[in-house]
Amino acid sequence: MYLTQGLHRSLQQNPDAPATIFGDRVRTVRELADRVSRLAAALRAMDVADGERVGVLALNSDRFAEILLAVPWTGGVVNPVNIRWSPAEIVYSLAECQTDILFVDDAFAAYAPVLRQGYPALRKVVHIGDGPLPEGMLDYEELIAAHEPIPDVRRGGDSLLGIFYTGGTTGFPKGAMISHANLFVATYGSRATAPTGLPGGKSLLVAPMFHMAAFAAWYTQLVLGGTHVIVPFFEPGTVIETIARHRVSYVMLVPTMIQMLVDHPSAAEHDLSCVRHVVYGASPISETLLRQAMRTFPRAEFVQAYGMTELAPAATLLTSEDHREGTRLRSAGRAAMHAEVAVVGPDDQVLPPGRVGEVVVRGGHVMLGYWNKPAETAEALRGGWMHTGDGGYLDEDGYLHIVDRIKDMIISGGENVYSAEVENALAAHPAVALCAVIGIPDAVYGERVHAVIKLKPGATATLAEIRDHCKSLIAGYKAPRSCEFVEDFPLSAAGKILKRELRKPYWEEKDRTVQ
Amino acid sequence: MYLTQGLHRSLQQNPDAPATIFGDRVRTVRELADRVSRLAAALRAMDVADGERVGVLALNSDRFAEILLAVPWTGGVVNPVNIRWSPAEIVYSLAECQTDILFVDDAFAAYAPVLRQGYPALRKVVHIGDGPLPEGMLDYEELIAAHEPIPDVRRGGDSLLGIFYTGGTTGFPKGAMISHANLFVATYGSRATAPTGLPGGKSLLVAPMFHMAAFAAWYTQLVLGGTHVIVPFFEPGTVIETIARHRVSYVMLVPTMIQMLVDHPSAAEHDLSCVRHVVYGASPISETLLRQAMRTFPRAEFVQAYGMTELAPAATLLTSEDHREGTRLRSAGRAAMHAEVAVVGPDDQVLPPGRVGEVVVRGGHVMLGYWNKPAETAEALRGGWMHTGDGGYLDEDGYLHIVDRIKDMIISGGENVYSAEVENALAAHPAVALCAVIGIPDAVYGERVHAVIKLKPGATATLAEIRDHCKSLIAGYKAPRSCEFVEDFPLSAAGKILKRELRKPYWEEKDRTVQ
Repeated sequence: MYLTQGLHRSLQQNPDAPATIFGDRVRTVRELADRVSRLAAALRAMDVADGERVGVLALNSDRFAEILLAVPWTGGVVNPVNIRWSPAEIVYSLAECQTDILFVDDAFAAYAPVLRQGYPALRKVVHIGDGPLPEGMLDYEELIAAHEPIPDVRRGGDSLLGIFYTGGTTGFPKGAMISHANLFVATYGSRATAPTGLPGGKSLLVAPMFHMAAFAAWYTQLVLGGTHVIVPFFEPGTVIETIARHRVSYVMLVPTMIQMLVDHPSAAEHDLSCVRHVVYGASPISETLLRQAMRTFPRAEFVQAYGMTELAPAATLLTSEDHREGTRLRSAGRAAMHAEVAVVGPDDQVLPPGRVGEVVVRGGHVMLGYWNKPAETAEALRGGWMHTGDGGYLDEDGYLHIVDRIKDMIISGGENVYSAEVENALAAHPAVALCAVIGIPDAVYGERVHAVIKLKPGATATLAEIRDHCKSLIAGYKAPRSCEFVEDFPLSAAGKILKRELRKPYWEEKDRTVQ
Repeated sequence: MYLTQGLHRSLQQNPDAPATIFGDRVRTVRELADRVSRLAAALRAMDVADGERVGVLALNSDRFAEILLAVPWTGGVVNPVNIRWSPAEIVYSLAECQTDILFVDDAFAAYAPVLRQGYPALRKVVHIGDGPLPEGMLDYEELIAAHEPIPDVRRGGDSLLGIFYTGGTTGFPKGAMISHANLFVATYGSRATAPTGLPGGKSLLVAPMFHMAAFAAWYTQLVLGGTHVIVPFFEPGTVIETIARHRVSYVMLVPTMIQMLVDHPSAAEHDLSCVRHVVYGASPISETLLRQAMRTFPRAEFVQAYGMTELAPAATLLTSEDHREGTRLRSAGRAAMHAEVAVVGPDDQVLPPGRVGEVVVRGGHVMLGYWNKPAETAEALRGGWMHTGDGGYLDEDGYLHIVDRIKDMIISGGENVYSAEVENALAAHPAVALCAVIGIPDAVYGERVHAVIKLKPGATATLAEIRDHCKSLIAGYKAPRSCEFVEDFPLSAAGKILKRELRKPYWEEKDRTVQ
């Protein structure tokens, strides 16, 4: 079991089929394999040896997919960089796992100087855009043309496939180490439980490929054979037009994206009956939205996947049968065939059905650990279970219901925002005495990052100032979109801010379906 | 990934559903788990520790399934014994892998004294039949009643799950060591490639459970949840009646069994539309039989699996789409998503499409090795590929076509000659009723292509005529250089020509090293 296996299989079974479509650029399986083997040779020439990290900082593209194949082909480890991060965060992650070769596209070429400055060990930057070659970078197509194919080293099994950085609950991001076997187990297990994607079908890659969810959707279609239709980012009109034009059969989305697609005027103008599977995650779907989506994609089966980067990523699935049945749309589904799911109390004892506790997951898909963070790894994986940080309960039929984020994570527009990280940024503001960050309902993003702030005596601040301050430290999407100033916080006996109390007025009247 | 995981998952999701149906005996998932955990305790009390072998010599039953779960539950390794073997062969295999606890049913209880005599280390024999308790045996139900449940040790991953002895065509049987991960990879990979079985469906277990193919079919339904409907052995009337009575959705058969089912008068009298998946193996299906089978099972999808015990077991699959398409029914399908399949020459170099050689397979499903046979293991797994011993070729679309056993391959003057190809040519001669082609010693060519022919009543033929006929169809070097006419062939119990017997007189005095 190794990542590139699907490419070899396609080469045996469908060599002349289109493998990637990006704009008007189409590459067959044979061409893709040839390019990947040459790019692997170029990486080898850069001394990418067994286990060496190679980064990608780019919007989605066919070249992004080529890199994901070429790196393990030559024995390396991929480090797909979160494109929404600030340069400071990116520098932190590159330096932490010593990624000294980086691929960037036109959208992120401008980051290169500041990344080099922050991390001088960055020795090669390869430009994968179609625009002019920026100074100090290597040209992607020249590298491919200049090298002869090398054989696949077939790195696989329990060896490290990639490092996927995930938001820092304690401030700093952590690099989840995912093995080839992790991805194999999660993908084959998910597909064995709830079929998604068709052999030889066409998959639309629209969620950002650095995300584990999109990465896994890409891998699913890779092992199934067939074609990846790739768009650089989510834009509803383009997505609808692309689906219709290429007769896409499989797409992975988040409910926010689904909402924007069904609301878009051009949805009604296109025949989208080609779509057979819609997989969504990050949050449940409302019954209203599901009904709308079933009209927009009349032949699609809907599958919800719940999981996290550390689980490569799926643990539970709400199957298409569950969707048809329709009474459990708020649940995250049941343990997939490869995963064991339980709910534990604060003492890590398994709780009976109906009792709320922390959701924990066990199986061959659980990450190897966090890069260079043995203490955090031991904590997260204690007792052999991955502690998700999500609060929830299992019902009598084994359906998982997520009720809250144990660690106060906010999911805003499909992105995970850890309140602790935002609180750290806020606390650095000179006017802030005390603060708490919570998720509150938002019509567009599902949840919105909201700050509750107690100012220092005599100090003043505005939302705009607060936002600017935060954006100088963390990614823009993590900065609070709203705030309120308070005199005092509700505190527990132990002096801890009771976030539940802060959240209550915002959620009370809502029929809250989001976790 | 461990064998008993599917049972735990069912316990979480469907505890009150029927897990096993055997005759009129029905056990729910909860009852099954309780019985398994008690039986595991009984085994523990017999000092079954980590990796200890436990044998089963029995027809199919619900208790057979309980044993398959209880043994790994307590850390042991299963050794399902081939019920078609002679007591001497069974003694050989028990002694070789030191299986000193054995479960037997009423059908095989009579073997116990001779097994004990041949293998005095056999210390416990447990009777799982419904008949009276034979002397010197422990009673299965008493053991379960006498022990309290113990927790599952969850033995899994790369650890040894079972030893499956495989045919001694070349002399002594070899124990293929299959890990939990091997079975996981083959089963999840097969199901991800070509769905078989329904979640919560009903699977009929009719092929003998000691066989890897039936064992894997059992495991597939186990991980899917649902019910195992078990019959002790194949009897067409009973099978038809059982399928209809319990609304079975999934059945694994061999084409001979399918033929007997469609030919049986009661097939037409029962509604068999409940069957949604028919998986078959061991040999391809003819177009005629497929058509008949599609009438008998009007809603079934047909999937052919090709593999072997050492591959746990599937490597290639002919999917339901391939069956509908209908032009490749003679092929064994294409590499499943978990398997790499290639064809190699005598030097182990991979051959291009269209060239006949030995079929080799690589992947996470390849056995750990043969028990206690390092030389045979190294030979079978040389270069990281499992050498199947089957001759075949891959076509341009990656479909595998099996032409013969390599062991039936004749090497004459350095050329490979597949006896099946010559036999096909011979069979087209109007005078030939039955034929077999073998290699016999030849001073010049090493081996010589030799035909053994039974003529049609009243027909005559000469070697020259036969040769000319063959040369009109196949290459000259493949045409028989000698032949003999016989009245009858030595046949196996299954009606297969015993080529070994035909070869014997020619090779008897030779030190034959070729297989």
